Amino acid sequence: MSKCILGIDPGFAILGFGAISCTQNQNSLQDTSVQMLDYGAIVTSAKEEMGTRLCTLFDDLHTIIGEIKPDLVAIEKLFFYRMANTILIAQARGVIMLVLAQHKLPYVEFTPAQIKLALTGYGNAEKIEVQEAVARELNLDEIPKPDDAADGLAVALTAWYQF
Amino acid sequence: MSKCILGIDPGFAILGFGAISCTQNQNSLQDTSVQMLDYGAIVTSAKEEMGTRLCTLFDDLHTIIGEIKPDLVAIEKLFFYRMANTILIAQARGVIMLVLAQHKLPYVEFTPAQIKLALTGYGNAEKIEVQEAVARELNLDEIPKPDDAADGLAVALTAWYQF
Repeated sequence: MSKCILGIDPGFAILGFGAISCTQNQNSLQDTSVQMLDYGAIVTSAKEEMGTRLCTLFDDLHTIIGEIKPDLVAIEKLFFYRMANTILIAQARGVIMLVLAQHKLPYVEFTPAQIKLALTGYGNAEKIEVQEAVARELNLDEIPKPDDAADGLAVALTAWYQF
Repeated sequence: MSKCILGIDPGFAILGFGAISCTQNQNSLQDTSVQMLDYGAIVTSAKEEMGTRLCTLFDDLHTIIGEIKPDLVAIEKLFFYRMANTILIAQARGVIMLVLAQHKLPYVEFTPAQIKLALTGYGNAEKIEVQEAVARELNLDEIPKPDDAADGLAVALTAWYQF
């Protein structure tokens, strides 16, 4: 039995995503394996108006979900640092949640601290430690680029560890 | 020459809208008249998940724009009062901006104070004064209900006064 988890690091300038396939051996519940399926980022130009950028997110996310056909989506929770930026990311998150609902996809959310804890064992790990854990867990030769894609894989792995 | 302006009071629980038709007399630039076309609200249930509520906003707003076919959209700007609520309204605003961009519709934004000033002559008018001004300006027998629909008409009128 194999399940696909799509991880999303929300953003309006760069939305990172990473998809993993989790396979469970039918003879042993403990015996599971995980594999990287795909990762990347949707990048929108600062020269475009916000509405146009949200259209790009909407269209590209529909395409990605159509191709990857995930069973579950894992999203990194909004991190509140600056009000203006938080508003813009929340707008992008609205579009992401719309697309997930249009595909009737279940989703789970994790805070940055939960993701760090799941990947490295402690909640205030450095970004590079999380990225190295992603590469190690998925047997990747290099750390996935851009960072947002690595973050997408990290939140997908966090969801996998939970189930 | 007649133009239609659609005013939107953004929200995820209730999105108010109001459409007006502005007609300019060809013989005199000063001689314009305004007329109420339609008003109402998109209401989403608190019992539904946020994604489902955003789907309702998305679908209903597409339907409303398809029927009203506005030339311009006027939106009430986000008013920051409580962080949690602001995030939720920003998510709804992301969906609204997506739909406007999908229809390639131009939009203008006004703060609550700008709307009050335009309708009543002073920026800290009471809500009821704005609503009475809307009813008077559009020759309505009653104040439009719900309040969100009256707010939609108010922001549409604000855009009309500016052009």
